[in-house]
Amino acid sequence: MKVATRPIPGKSHRHDGELVVVSDDLRSCRRVRDLTLQDVLDSDVTEDDLRPHLAKQEDFVPASAHAPLPRAYQFLDGSAYVNHVELVRKARGAQMPDSFWSDPLMYQGLSVFAAPCAPILGKEDWGIDFEAEVAVITRHVPLGVTAEDAAGYIAYVMLLNDVSLRNLIPPELSKGFGFVHSKPISACSPVAVTPDVLPGWDGRKLHGTLRVDLNGTPFGRADAGIDMTFDFGDLIAHAAKTRALPAGSVIGSGTISNKLDNGPGKTVAEGGAGYSCIAEQRMVETILHGGPRTPFMAAGDHVEIWMEDQSGQDIFGHISQTVETI
Amino acid sequence: MKVATRPIPGKSHRHDGELVVVSDDLRSCRRVRDLTLQDVLDSDVTEDDLRPHLAKQEDFVPASAHAPLPRAYQFLDGSAYVNHVELVRKARGAQMPDSFWSDPLMYQGLSVFAAPCAPILGKEDWGIDFEAEVAVITRHVPLGVTAEDAAGYIAYVMLLNDVSLRNLIPPELSKGFGFVHSKPISACSPVAVTPDVLPGWDGRKLHGTLRVDLNGTPFGRADAGIDMTFDFGDLIAHAAKTRALPAGSVIGSGTISNKLDNGPGKTVAEGGAGYSCIAEQRMVETILHGGPRTPFMAAGDHVEIWMEDQSGQDIFGHISQTVETI
Repeated sequence: MKVATRPIPGKSHRHDGELVVVSDDLRSCRRVRDLTLQDVLDSDVTEDDLRPHLAKQEDFVPASAHAPLPRAYQFLDGSAYVNHVELVRKARGAQMPDSFWSDPLMYQGLSVFAAPCAPILGKEDWGIDFEAEVAVITRHVPLGVTAEDAAGYIAYVMLLNDVSLRNLIPPELSKGFGFVHSKPISACSPVAVTPDVLPGWDGRKLHGTLRVDLNGTPFGRADAGIDMTFDFGDLIAHAAKTRALPAGSVIGSGTISNKLDNGPGKTVAEGGAGYSCIAEQRMVETILHGGPRTPFMAAGDHVEIWMEDQSGQDIFGHISQTVETI
Repeated sequence: MKVATRPIPGKSHRHDGELVVVSDDLRSCRRVRDLTLQDVLDSDVTEDDLRPHLAKQEDFVPASAHAPLPRAYQFLDGSAYVNHVELVRKARGAQMPDSFWSDPLMYQGLSVFAAPCAPILGKEDWGIDFEAEVAVITRHVPLGVTAEDAAGYIAYVMLLNDVSLRNLIPPELSKGFGFVHSKPISACSPVAVTPDVLPGWDGRKLHGTLRVDLNGTPFGRADAGIDMTFDFGDLIAHAAKTRALPAGSVIGSGTISNKLDNGPGKTVAEGGAGYSCIAEQRMVETILHGGPRTPFMAAGDHVEIWMEDQSGQDIFGHISQTVETI
């Protein structure tokens, strides 16, 4: 099943929007009466349970959707692609301990999410960057769940743009309490998909090319199933070590990153998999040329993030965001 | 107005519970039909708006209440009592930069909250500790709000026990991404109070003795209005620098701590204000005696946190938690 949430015209105080069940090709949908996505997650409502609530079929417009879960009770973002962590740490002049290959890195982020086509709001000197990720929405997960059992609590999979303010990160992390200013609101793909119908889902990770375009030019074509050191089973188990996870918790993969030839990687133009965030490309530029060449995002810059199945069908709809400076 | 949220018997999937308006003496309440506290915050419902929704008066039992907001969309916990930060950092063998006196320290925490009398679940070797705090629940706060304007968005004030797993903190913080494992679920006082009727509220901070008993013995009697380097206006403005805060955001003060005579402080038994967490007392013991003497919490240990007005009337009800090992 594919689901999305639409804003309700004239009812901006109904922040949770209205749930729709979306056709596989993202062209049509049926509104779900009386239930939000959070309600569905709270009560473990099945696809069969939803059927009596469905209104008549109508057109679906992915670009006008909200995030599937416009506000969640928890967002824990992992750094499952350790290659990315190693490169970004190098870019910050920080060492990466060897334990990062065995102990997942994870931070607690803002769990209110922006619509897929919402502007990215910020100041240019904050160093605005995107991070293209895969994220899962969980059912209630018991405290202390194992990685093996954890995957069974994944209710939906979606894409996520974890907006990062690079120039605010070093001073903030040096304070020792993690990210607040440097990780503002993230955006989600229009559609979230249940694992049973998700092409490329192997039970614990998603295989397939995560497509990232910057200003209309291919920037990233990394495969989400490659070089994922910690899969979603590992990430959920890590998250639940000392807490139960409430229904509707969002767990992010961290920036997708492929090491491939064991070198720093190549841009898409050079025939490589490119990068899923600007910071990583800048680090590679620093390694190769002595300094970064690609600037962070400026007013009007646009990032597009999506994924297609093997037939070219759009799976989640596009995250499509343009920077607006404040 | 004083409000509380009660669990709904037999309806555990209704996680947001039912809202009640509580009498000033915490003895009686009236159920609010059709609205949760989150609904009230979403729509800026006033006390007058609530009146038609009130059911008949009945007894209120603070100990059976849930947290006022059992699940919120955001919890950002400050460290406003910088004296506490300095002592706890010393206890960890870490230096505190001078900037901490001008730039608030804040972390993003788990925004699902435990009932006031819920057990504290954990393993003894995690180093279980309490942190007695004041917290506010905000209305929707715009991005970039000033500290002066921020205080106007405070809807409710409550007490909070920010449970901390001390032995998990050093390895977790050394990873650089803040707290996940080491800050499990926090508990809230039974009752949240609007600023207009809150004794000791000066518009931006709360004055009065925060009472903390450990196993029935007075442990902390610090004044929440003393040595608060950053008030709630400062903390909210800090939180909203790069994000709007959704209605129902919880902003914590951090552990209440009084420096008083400029020394390390004294226990309540010695005539001092005591401490609002065990870690701070252990640090003072280390300074005075070369090592900590007070152990962290073990199975069966009990912490009680509350606040009284000048006539001895309980303001928020008691947080009253006992450790259960898992």
